[in-house]
Amino acid sequence: MQFQIDNNFINQIKDLISENDGKQLTNLLNDVHYADIAEILEELDFEASIYIIKLLNSELTADIIAELDDDVRDKILNALTSKEIAEKIDELETDDAADIISELTKEKKEEVISQLEDVEHAKGIVDLLRYDEDTAGGLMRKELIAVRDSWTVLRCVKEMRKQAEAFEKVHTIYVVDDDDILKGRLSLKSLLTTSTKTPIKDVYEPKITFVKAEEDDQEVANIMQKYDLIVMPVIDEMGRLVGQITIDDIVDVIKEEADKDYQMAAGLTQDVEAGDTIFQLTRARLPWLILGLFGGIGAAAIMGGFEDIIKSHAILFFFTPLIAAMAGNVGVQSSAIIVQGLANNDVKGSITNRLWKEFLLAIVNGFILSVLLFIYTFITASDFNTSIAISISLFSVIIVAGLIGTFIPLFLDKRGIDPAIATGPFITTSNDIFGILIYFMIAKLILGF
Amino acid sequence: MQFQIDNNFINQIKDLISENDGKQLTNLLNDVHYADIAEILEELDFEASIYIIKLLNSELTADIIAELDDDVRDKILNALTSKEIAEKIDELETDDAADIISELTKEKKEEVISQLEDVEHAKGIVDLLRYDEDTAGGLMRKELIAVRDSWTVLRCVKEMRKQAEAFEKVHTIYVVDDDDILKGRLSLKSLLTTSTKTPIKDVYEPKITFVKAEEDDQEVANIMQKYDLIVMPVIDEMGRLVGQITIDDIVDVIKEEADKDYQMAAGLTQDVEAGDTIFQLTRARLPWLILGLFGGIGAAAIMGGFEDIIKSHAILFFFTPLIAAMAGNVGVQSSAIIVQGLANNDVKGSITNRLWKEFLLAIVNGFILSVLLFIYTFITASDFNTSIAISISLFSVIIVAGLIGTFIPLFLDKRGIDPAIATGPFITTSNDIFGILIYFMIAKLILGF
Repeated sequence: MQFQIDNNFINQIKDLISENDGKQLTNLLNDVHYADIAEILEELDFEASIYIIKLLNSELTADIIAELDDDVRDKILNALTSKEIAEKIDELETDDAADIISELTKEKKEEVISQLEDVEHAKGIVDLLRYDEDTAGGLMRKELIAVRDSWTVLRCVKEMRKQAEAFEKVHTIYVVDDDDILKGRLSLKSLLTTSTKTPIKDVYEPKITFVKAEEDDQEVANIMQKYDLIVMPVIDEMGRLVGQITIDDIVDVIKEEADKDYQMAAGLTQDVEAGDTIFQLTRARLPWLILGLFGGIGAAAIMGGFEDIIKSHAILFFFTPLIAAMAGNVGVQSSAIIVQGLANNDVKGSITNRLWKEFLLAIVNGFILSVLLFIYTFITASDFNTSIAISISLFSVIIVAGLIGTFIPLFLDKRGIDPAIATGPFITTSNDIFGILIYFMIAKLILGF
Repeated sequence: MQFQIDNNFINQIKDLISENDGKQLTNLLNDVHYADIAEILEELDFEASIYIIKLLNSELTADIIAELDDDVRDKILNALTSKEIAEKIDELETDDAADIISELTKEKKEEVISQLEDVEHAKGIVDLLRYDEDTAGGLMRKELIAVRDSWTVLRCVKEMRKQAEAFEKVHTIYVVDDDDILKGRLSLKSLLTTSTKTPIKDVYEPKITFVKAEEDDQEVANIMQKYDLIVMPVIDEMGRLVGQITIDDIVDVIKEEADKDYQMAAGLTQDVEAGDTIFQLTRARLPWLILGLFGGIGAAAIMGGFEDIIKSHAILFFFTPLIAAMAGNVGVQSSAIIVQGLANNDVKGSITNRLWKEFLLAIVNGFILSVLLFIYTFITASDFNTSIAISISLFSVIIVAGLIGTFIPLFLDKRGIDPAIATGPFITTSNDIFGILIYFMIAKLILGF
């Protein structure tokens, strides 16, 4: 099972497709995991992908399609008829099925749903389509094992045998009452070791962590992570069990959120990958670069305003990239800690406390950095006044940048805006401008030009 | 189970501690999940934490200690005797137990191990201590259910009943041969629906994804994520089943890696949280700021070398923060995409292809940005030559920054160094200096000073 996709394997597949040798290709791919086949399709061109999708059986291709990246999947779904899509949907669990159907056009969506074979399955899928994808309802699946608290252990085992095909993935046996209200869970231990006549209500575990269907997906991720849960039941407004969320879907939520924050910090506005087209990559990068350009133009305009002192104090101008860089770095450091703290729910205490701490921290860092800069400028420029002016300016810039970097994400968060945006070029750019303005104003005060 | 820790609750606990009302406090905390109690302890002072740890039973406090942040945990473990620690370790699963023991001093470690009650459990823990914490062996637990392929279904159910206490957390029943070599897994479906006389070797599922104990934890995370696994068996060099990894531990690995990359991108050298002390925060931030300071000094030195043209071409100096910012932003954007691609295993193709793509991308972005800057400078400065010189310089700087940003993480990765380091102030700083140097050299060529 330690399978590695290499170029040899891809070439072998390409050769078999060009020879139209479906039998050999089926043999070759039958032993490969669907997640690996999905990766292979992303390496092949469109015609080759469709050839493979039409060749393999629906059970396998359903899983492959569920694994594909959105853009490749869209293309493939467009090339399939509603009938073909419905055949694949029939093989999928409700959550994956709903994810795929929700990407179809309204018309095709209805066609596909009307052609699903299993009515119960179709009902489950349609039910899931109601929920926003960023909520617990959007993450959950309908497939689960639930027993009634009015049953005995024997009845319970019998009912479970009936639903045998779902067993491969049983992680928890939920207990509900006759109105489907979630009561708790039944451990496998009780099921295997208690006398068959025991009523379920005497042996079930009533303590269970659950979420409501409308709960935000990030909050679901936080709860499952905090309590080390593998699965979690989802209830509706009336407390009825409506689905369950498994941790593998939460892993994707955590990964996507982390990737998004990281990309924002790096100045990329939308989800991009190294393999995307030049156009996609440009669209993700250019907006922030244009923002940076305006920031730089702003800085240039400020410096232009001090042009008449350029002859007497040329050295001040040499240190503007340093001031801008320090303002940007300090700001991003401060923001990043707050953004991570907010994401992990561990920023406690008031904004005032947080700003006060950042102020102290900026004093420590600012003092050390200013002394180092003073030593350098005094040795090289040998002018005490100018050296002290540059150092005090740096010190002030660091304090202001730290405070801005702390305040902005806290402010955005209070307003309900994703604070991660504050760690990107947004804060660097505004700190660049503020930094250079403060720098020249303080230098002016001290040097009296 | 929708428990929220608030200040009221914390104050109630503080009051009960100061009144020394252990009974009331035990009642209050008995209904609270251990993960929540761990969070509460992190809000309390040291004496209060120890009071609670000594008050509650070992079964509960063992889980609380396993959940605590390293620094709080260290303090608490220091205040407990080896006997007390051993009592808690006895209650924990082997992986959590090994994590805690590995933090103790050599002497205390031996004392604690010698006082463990359950010999099998102790053996398992000592076995786990052999593995590096960043490997599959460092993540796995010894607790698992394995049945022999030579048994019948009946024998299997009997053996499983014997090990009943482990049942709460059964996710997979592993099948091994008489030499403990991993053969596959047994589904709950087969166990519940096959005749009791059936030999296990006729019904087990031989396809199973596993890892070797020395496998890197990031790779384990990638495999479990790709194949949507909840648990995965770990084997030794001889193919023997030695433990299993559950997805909740992998969630922590993914989260920690993402946090680390994010912090590196933001210029924080070590794991810090918003609640850390000023000293810890300074230590995490100052090194990168000092690097930035040296970068700024380097830029100032370069500009000092062009001091004699400051009178004739003052405007060139006004745009240095812009050049530095653009070089930094473009570099970080390029690096971030490569770093994420490497982490997700989707940077395919050669370095040459990657650099070529980045080159094309830089031409597109660089052209648009340079034209915008040209329009601004030409309108405000009305000097065609200077405007064209600044714009061409920006264009060149963007191309070089993009190439450096792409090349450095790929190079670090080939050398076995974490490429995430390249997205931090490291690349910003080197790009600042390179950018300003290129800028003045190109301006010199065009304007001929």
